[in-house]
Amino acid sequence: MEPVRVVQMGLGAVGCGIARTALACPQLRVVGAIDVDPDKVGRDLGEILDAPDSLGIPVRDSLAQALDAQPADVVLQATGSHVPAVAGQLEEIAAAGCHVVSTCEELAYPWVRHAALAREIDAAARAHGVSILGTGVNPGFIMDSLVLMATAVCSDVRRIVSTRVVAARERRLALQQKIGSGMEEAAFRDLAARGEIGHVGLRESFLLVAAGLGWELDGFDEAIEPVLAEQPITTDHFEIAAGQVAGNHQTIRGASAGRELVLDLTMSMAVTQGRDTIEVDANPPMRVEILGGTHGDQATWSIIANMAPRVVEAPAGLLTMLDVGLPRALG
Amino acid sequence: MEPVRVVQMGLGAVGCGIARTALACPQLRVVGAIDVDPDKVGRDLGEILDAPDSLGIPVRDSLAQALDAQPADVVLQATGSHVPAVAGQLEEIAAAGCHVVSTCEELAYPWVRHAALAREIDAAARAHGVSILGTGVNPGFIMDSLVLMATAVCSDVRRIVSTRVVAARERRLALQQKIGSGMEEAAFRDLAARGEIGHVGLRESFLLVAAGLGWELDGFDEAIEPVLAEQPITTDHFEIAAGQVAGNHQTIRGASAGRELVLDLTMSMAVTQGRDTIEVDANPPMRVEILGGTHGDQATWSIIANMAPRVVEAPAGLLTMLDVGLPRALG
Repeated sequence: MEPVRVVQMGLGAVGCGIARTALACPQLRVVGAIDVDPDKVGRDLGEILDAPDSLGIPVRDSLAQALDAQPADVVLQATGSHVPAVAGQLEEIAAAGCHVVSTCEELAYPWVRHAALAREIDAAARAHGVSILGTGVNPGFIMDSLVLMATAVCSDVRRIVSTRVVAARERRLALQQKIGSGMEEAAFRDLAARGEIGHVGLRESFLLVAAGLGWELDGFDEAIEPVLAEQPITTDHFEIAAGQVAGNHQTIRGASAGRELVLDLTMSMAVTQGRDTIEVDANPPMRVEILGGTHGDQATWSIIANMAPRVVEAPAGLLTMLDVGLPRALG
Repeated sequence: MEPVRVVQMGLGAVGCGIARTALACPQLRVVGAIDVDPDKVGRDLGEILDAPDSLGIPVRDSLAQALDAQPADVVLQATGSHVPAVAGQLEEIAAAGCHVVSTCEELAYPWVRHAALAREIDAAARAHGVSILGTGVNPGFIMDSLVLMATAVCSDVRRIVSTRVVAARERRLALQQKIGSGMEEAAFRDLAARGEIGHVGLRESFLLVAAGLGWELDGFDEAIEPVLAEQPITTDHFEIAAGQVAGNHQTIRGASAGRELVLDLTMSMAVTQGRDTIEVDANPPMRVEILGGTHGDQATWSIIANMAPRVVEAPAGLLTMLDVGLPRALG
């Protein structure tokens, strides 16, 4: 099998992780890299990634330039969490005839929150015969596609509870900041009331599970609460006093004809051990646990790279994890 | 969405379980039933299933008669474990224009053990525009597609160990007999040496995982050992003396370019609690546990029913669990 030729679009922390993962993968060949940061444009990708050697891949500031140098099959997009911010890029990539695997959290199930834009992106993908997929570890795997997979041997599903606990101190600074580490409770609640804090993508996971099961939801409730430090927490980046915010606890729950779906996500500096569990009340019941949890960063880099051959094989359109065959590692 | 019209082919214990599951599922409509047993032919399916009411579905002894009465989309086949035994039926079903979900264990990955027959079945499926899938809980899920799914967030997979422990005393008499319950050790070893005892499908799970990962195997080793009762075991069906066979322990292991795959299956009357675990040594590592294990009978009935809409949507051909979208429950 010829390697799939990929271009890495976006060289922030996540994009660099994906690029390193793709470079180490014999089934993929990294043929280009794109970023808009003037400090990165023109430099060799190897230098950006702190690789020992030059890769002979200069960072370009546009897709056209990257593809002009080397044709590609798939663009690995890591440029934003919100569909409106990435839609223009997606249409440009589709027009260039490349498939897309994107880290955009809202793209994991864009058909409710951004229905009109989703239809536009889907039309562009179909017009150019390419497939576009939003995925990642969360959304994309732990709290949605793995949840659905756990139900594959079940009948009469009555209730599903997916719980993810992230030990934030093991993660990047950006994630530690994002969850409100070290904030005062009132400030956190202010941001929460304005919808300016919290993990993007929990609603998309929820909608993807419901869609996968064919559940028409009666509605759903979302909540976010601060996790307050019970005792001082000291890490490389933070000194969190007792009573200050150590993280957040976010839930979404809804029902469909008496059946219930609950996603429960805690990301906290106070947690020392991550954990992922899925409980399916059905015949037979299924209780799945990921011992020690799933490391978010490495897992995201991997699944984005792993899905590159899957989008090449998939039918054209704006897809979800329901549509791309069985997700799996590249050897 | 219109319900998928299904015909149940084979009304043994497994087939009856699938039929009951399908009947309870609003997304499916059972329109026919087939069995060759003269004691069942002509009777109403409801009577065969001990349902309270007649279902108005007489059991037929041929596919042609069943489809003559009612057109169908999918045949749920539960008539045999070995590809040569079901191949003729599969070709007949394909010629009639129906898709198939089959419990045939060897059909879960027939491309090695029965390569020529697999090509024949594939050609028939393509010629008639239908898709044919072999699945179940094992093979089909726990030790193969769920294993692959667990790797979806992994890079650099170095070793995979899938362990399944089945508490056989909770299962059907046929399964308890199949694992050698109550035999003398020497008799078990005799049968094992002749390949006449052991779970069918472990090799297929192994080959499916390897195929999913794109691993070219250097070879593989299979082994089967009796599990001997350490103390007497009394159940509804068996009195097993200490030292007699309480079950079997079956393994298959192989390597591909230094990476290792191990499937380890114990089915034993001495076990009181089932357990399924998947350990993936990779970046990140993944350790998945199904707490309490996965109940084999209900799980098989469910996954066969659940995959009916998936084969309708899938491309034509002889497929595996790699090819049919994300496996999931029907609501």
